[in-house]
Amino acid sequence: MPRAVLFDVFGTLVDWRGSVIAGLSAFGASRGIVADWPEIADSWRRAYRPSMDRVRRGAVPWTLLDDLHRDALMEITRRHGIGPLDDDDCEQLVRLWHRLAAWPDVATGLRRLKDVAVIGPLSNGHLALQVALARRNGFPWDVTFGSDMFRHYKPDAEVYLGACDFLGLAPDDVMLAAAHNDDLAAAASFGLRTAFISRPAEFGAATGDRARASGAWDIVVDSVGALAEALGG
Amino acid sequence: MPRAVLFDVFGTLVDWRGSVIAGLSAFGASRGIVADWPEIADSWRRAYRPSMDRVRRGAVPWTLLDDLHRDALMEITRRHGIGPLDDDDCEQLVRLWHRLAAWPDVATGLRRLKDVAVIGPLSNGHLALQVALARRNGFPWDVTFGSDMFRHYKPDAEVYLGACDFLGLAPDDVMLAAAHNDDLAAAASFGLRTAFISRPAEFGAATGDRARASGAWDIVVDSVGALAEALGG
Repeated sequence: MPRAVLFDVFGTLVDWRGSVIAGLSAFGASRGIVADWPEIADSWRRAYRPSMDRVRRGAVPWTLLDDLHRDALMEITRRHGIGPLDDDDCEQLVRLWHRLAAWPDVATGLRRLKDVAVIGPLSNGHLALQVALARRNGFPWDVTFGSDMFRHYKPDAEVYLGACDFLGLAPDDVMLAAAHNDDLAAAASFGLRTAFISRPAEFGAATGDRARASGAWDIVVDSVGALAEALGG
Repeated sequence: MPRAVLFDVFGTLVDWRGSVIAGLSAFGASRGIVADWPEIADSWRRAYRPSMDRVRRGAVPWTLLDDLHRDALMEITRRHGIGPLDDDDCEQLVRLWHRLAAWPDVATGLRRLKDVAVIGPLSNGHLALQVALARRNGFPWDVTFGSDMFRHYKPDAEVYLGACDFLGLAPDDVMLAAAHNDDLAAAASFGLRTAFISRPAEFGAATGDRARASGAWDIVVDSVGALAEALGG
């Protein structure tokens, strides 16, 4: 039994794609802008990894996810012939990532899991964003980690091992739960336990094999409730 | 209205003295050790500020509160003719500070306050200790700060302003609630709002004037529930 279970958030706990498409579409409707909002949402998400990788390899200094999101949005909307967005509109859209809706199983599952383990987020979102998502969705966290506490993005070791260190726990007392095989592979390489939570709708119809566990993870489930049950909660 | 209310913890939310005396007395009974446990508890607490001040002025490197507690306990028990304690006993006693009981108004008051503001601890305890106290007492934190996130102890500016920065809030959007005038004076000097919560039993019969507000704090109350009410929760 792990003593703490930490969760990837975007995709694993919250439906970033559905929420961002809904938010962009509502913005477009309010402004009379016609655009391919699902494609813009997907492009925005595709910019996520490369923008963090620039931080990870030191090409740019530590930058909060809100600021990476803002830069990417300006570039993508320009490419789609929208804008330039003014500062208020841009801020409003960047803030969509603070109000993402959870998958329906999450809040109930976390409450069960909390009975048997310390629970918290371990996301590339910063602390303020995690606080907003937790309040929006009723995540009953025992501890709140944000990437700005480590000034590193996953899959850097500093994030996984830094969280264990703050908790005063050895890596094998800590489990990472994520919908992403690469995140779990990094966690496992640093000695953490692993739980894969399949999210077949994360990328819409294009999710495909990404919703399938590709490693020898300790637990493979399709909901937080099923993870709680597997851990005796 | 502040957007976040952060709480001092030892004395403000939890009855460290009652809990530590009870824990030390139970330990003594189980070992057949007769000693003045209330005096030992008070001595232990008196060592708190000087030991943190050595860290604050750089006389010793960053040290977690558990380790400061351990050193002080060894010295105090030696002075009282107890011990030397073996490592397991020492660890068990240091861990008493992870299991302190809250004043009776706290959990209910925090749940009310959470409806109107982001809530979290801002204590000299480290994150693992805050997690343990929250789980023990049902504190429904939105965000968990620990001194090890700042590697500074209050009243250093880095703690108060560091918390505002993580929250993405200006200092005057953040309120510190504490039972200690000096903590509030520091918070006010850095631009935070202030709430004094009177705890007339914190130091037992010796509490005296320490339970009285001595500054022009924004709010003066005698419970977390009263603070929630003052803030519209």
